Amino acid sequence: VATAPHLRDLKPLTLLVAVVRGIGQVDFMASPWTGLVFIVALAAGNWRYAVYGVLGSAVATLTAYAFGAARDRVELGLEGFSGTLIGVAFVLYFGMSWMTTLLVVAGCVAGSVVTSALVTLLKPFNLPTFTAPFCIITSVMLLAAPSFERVRQGVTGPALPSAATGRTALTWNDIWQGMFNGIGQVFFQNKWYVGLVFLVGLVVGSWIAAVAAVVASLVGMAVAWVLGAPAADIAAGLYGYNAVLVGMALAGIFVVLTPVGGVYAVVGAIAATGLTAALTTFFTPFGGHTLTWPFVLVTWTFLAAVPALAWLRRAG
Amino acid sequence: VATAPHLRDLKPLTLLVAVVRGIGQVDFMASPWTGLVFIVALAAGNWRYAVYGVLGSAVATLTAYAFGAARDRVELGLEGFSGTLIGVAFVLYFGMSWMTTLLVVAGCVAGSVVTSALVTLLKPFNLPTFTAPFCIITSVMLLAAPSFERVRQGVTGPALPSAATGRTALTWNDIWQGMFNGIGQVFFQNKWYVGLVFLVGLVVGSWIAAVAAVVASLVGMAVAWVLGAPAADIAAGLYGYNAVLVGMALAGIFVVLTPVGGVYAVVGAIAATGLTAALTTFFTPFGGHTLTWPFVLVTWTFLAAVPALAWLRRAG
Amino acid sequence: VATAPHLRDLKPLTLLVAVVRGIGQVDFMASPWTGLVFIVALAAGNWRYAVYGVLGSAVATLTAYAFGAARDRVELGLEGFSGTLIGVAFVLYFGMSWMTTLLVVAGCVAGSVVTSALVTLLKPFNLPTFTAPFCIITSVMLLAAPSFERVRQGVTGPALPSAATGRTALTWNDIWQGMFNGIGQVFFQNKWYVGLVFLVGLVVGSWIAAVAAVVASLVGMAVAWVLGAPAADIAAGLYGYNAVLVGMALAGIFVVLTPVGGVYAVVGAIAATGLTAALTTFFTPFGGHTLTWPFVLVTWTFLAAVPALAWLRRAG
Repeated sequence: VATAPHLRDLKPLTLLVAVVRGIGQVDFMASPWTGLVFIVALAAGNWRYAVYGVLGSAVATLTAYAFGAARDRVELGLEGFSGTLIGVAFVLYFGMSWMTTLLVVAGCVAGSVVTSALVTLLKPFNLPTFTAPFCIITSVMLLAAPSFERVRQGVTGPALPSAATGRTALTWNDIWQGMFNGIGQVFFQNKWYVGLVFLVGLVVGSWIAAVAAVVASLVGMAVAWVLGAPAADIAAGLYGYNAVLVGMALAGIFVVLTPVGGVYAVVGAIAATGLTAALTTFFTPFGGHTLTWPFVLVTWTFLAAVPALAWLRRAG
Repeated sequence: VATAPHLRDLKPLTLLVAVVRGIGQVDFMASPWTGLVFIVALAAGNWRYAVYGVLGSAVATLTAYAFGAARDRVELGLEGFSGTLIGVAFVLYFGMSWMTTLLVVAGCVAGSVVTSALVTLLKPFNLPTFTAPFCIITSVMLLAAPSFERVRQGVTGPALPSAATGRTALTWNDIWQGMFNGIGQVFFQNKWYVGLVFLVGLVVGSWIAAVAAVVASLVGMAVAWVLGAPAADIAAGLYGYNAVLVGMALAGIFVVLTPVGGVYAVVGAIAATGLTAALTTFFTPFGGHTLTWPFVLVTWTFLAAVPALAWLRRAG
Repeated sequence: VATAPHLRDLKPLTLLVAVVRGIGQVDFMASPWTGLVFIVALAAGNWRYAVYGVLGSAVATLTAYAFGAARDRVELGLEGFSGTLIGVAFVLYFGMSWMTTLLVVAGCVAGSVVTSALVTLLKPFNLPTFTAPFCIITSVMLLAAPSFERVRQGVTGPALPSAATGRTALTWNDIWQGMFNGIGQVFFQNKWYVGLVFLVGLVVGSWIAAVAAVVASLVGMAVAWVLGAPAADIAAGLYGYNAVLVGMALAGIFVVLTPVGGVYAVVGAIAATGLTAALTTFFTPFGGHTLTWPFVLVTWTFLAAVPALAWLRRAG
């Protein structure tokens, strides 16, 4: 922590790059070019998502600077990405308003503290925070909203509704759109062309991650189809986005990509799909927002297991 | 652990002081004088709270002695304070009866084991147990009560009802009474003059902690007011008591009180207020008892983050 | 982990013994003879339990081999026992079908990863995994089931229904049958003679554990009776099975059996009974399957406390 930058050392350009990287780090990409493509993707969904996503990354990154987080973490965008998702989620769930802007700022400040707490708590196990700070802050705010008149006024219906019934047979359109939506839903986006732009951003950052994302999205859809999930949910990417994140994380980024490692990543994507259904049921009494909890929990579990399994090795 | 006292080494006066300190340690005060003033405050609410609070501290402290907990922890009252709150909460929720007395004894014995478990589990992260043992035992007992005919007979309505609707504008009376109630609700007390006596006890123990408690109580109320919480809940201290505990813990007791540290404590008090609303929603299906869970979770998080943040330092 | 066996080193007989041991390790018994008697007990309940229990142990053990888990853990059956319970639970809850068989295989593969993750995460605290992997996988699958048409088709009612009302006075038949059922319910069995066969298996493995199981089953029943639980639940062993596991774990297997240690085990059995009622309430909105969560949580807590308590010592 001796490397923490003083506020007076803030170089505007470095900070700007860190904020943009904070968009790409949602998908583990440190490249600012990926971050820029992701901003385009968010704007293709709705310009509000782009604005609040950048705001969130900026507030979280600045808070980390102000309290003295490690310089390399700040510059790589690792202090910003949970803020990105907080910004996007809050404007989606609470509508665009001054109150929402205030909540995003407060949420990103608190999320920054949660990030530092998890960095300390997870260090003995060599586990990254992943999007846990985003999940914690957003779950807390969604649970708190009904108590506060000026917050619940803006609350829209659940963004990720589940039919729970309906046809289970998949059409060709369900499949190819669902594959892209699985990539877009990481950022709460459910239009196939938005997912396509995100995929372009992934290709810019890492070919392997892009392939892993496509394969994992299809694995998640296949599992959901075999078990009999409603086709509408599968086509919306709801059973894919956690598998996408788990697949990328386990296939090369945090686990060395060997044949056994590849099998391990597929098992992880399958587990994430099951856990997505389970957590959707669990969160139903509280509004039903699963967020990326399944990704966080499955990837922590699968990375924690690696030291006990001789045929797997941690990467990165 | 070589310092654990044998049962035959029990000196009655040392034990008595430890039990009284166990009342004050609910608010981090080791001074037995603070403990005595707190007993007066409880009695000002209702003599039953004083009796069961002392009983709880005594049973928990004796259990820790009997199983061989560290002598310094026992003598400082650190093994007693969760028992204090268990005693007060049980007589409040289950009514005064022989069954309640039995439950308090059993709960404090189990709570003492939970305390020792947390001491071990939290040691690598240098985190105190706070009131987590009380929260765990009381949540478990409240959840268990419906299954047991002889327990649920005495169950009263929720002690901390929330209007959830109603006027949100604060009167002057709401504000000054709410400030004191935020201090009293740490012990489930909702009369302003009881909160005042607790504040006197804090002043006896530490001026800084007393100031922090007042400021944090007001911060919690302000946050709840801005977000639009019902005035009745704010005036009852329901949005203040977790902020009070977080504020005292972060302002000088566990974090060095610097300008950045002061900002950090305010952020913590704000976070505790949001989490209070969230956990109230979360516990609603199970009877809606938030207890001091928000304080425990926020303070653990904010203390765990300190080693990763260069401009903050742990105290004590 | 240098001792992880290569797949080509698989000796069929060693593997077979490991799978059988995986049945007995549900009750901490490494003896393959205990495992064999337990298979007989399961078959006495219903041949399907025996088949799926062995299948689960085999899949979990093979997965651990394939990913390279430590050889001694595999050979002792420590990688199999959660799979045993997953197999029994899934055929009980989802009925016998190809889909259930698929779910058991997938669940045991995932459970094997969870086991390795917990081995790593719990190592700093010297805590065993206990049946946590089984509890996690089965809770997730039960929560996920409603989302999947082809899974929920087979779902039967809750296996452990609670009357919650009804007479609370115990008959002599309630008592002696309940004592055996407390031992059988560890494997979801609620016929007294099945519990008796399990007790025989315990005697084969360890006299002390068998005595502890009987005493703990009676302690659990006594606590539930004092608090006023329905006699039907007590007689079905629902308040005994977690106490049985806690009692065996704390009385000699993981804590040295001294007079203080014996008291500690009884306190643990009492705590497990209370937590059983609490978790039953907690899980009610989600289908109400308590599984062996109370045993896992109480035993982790009581073992974690041992290093902080001078008059207790860890065994094994």
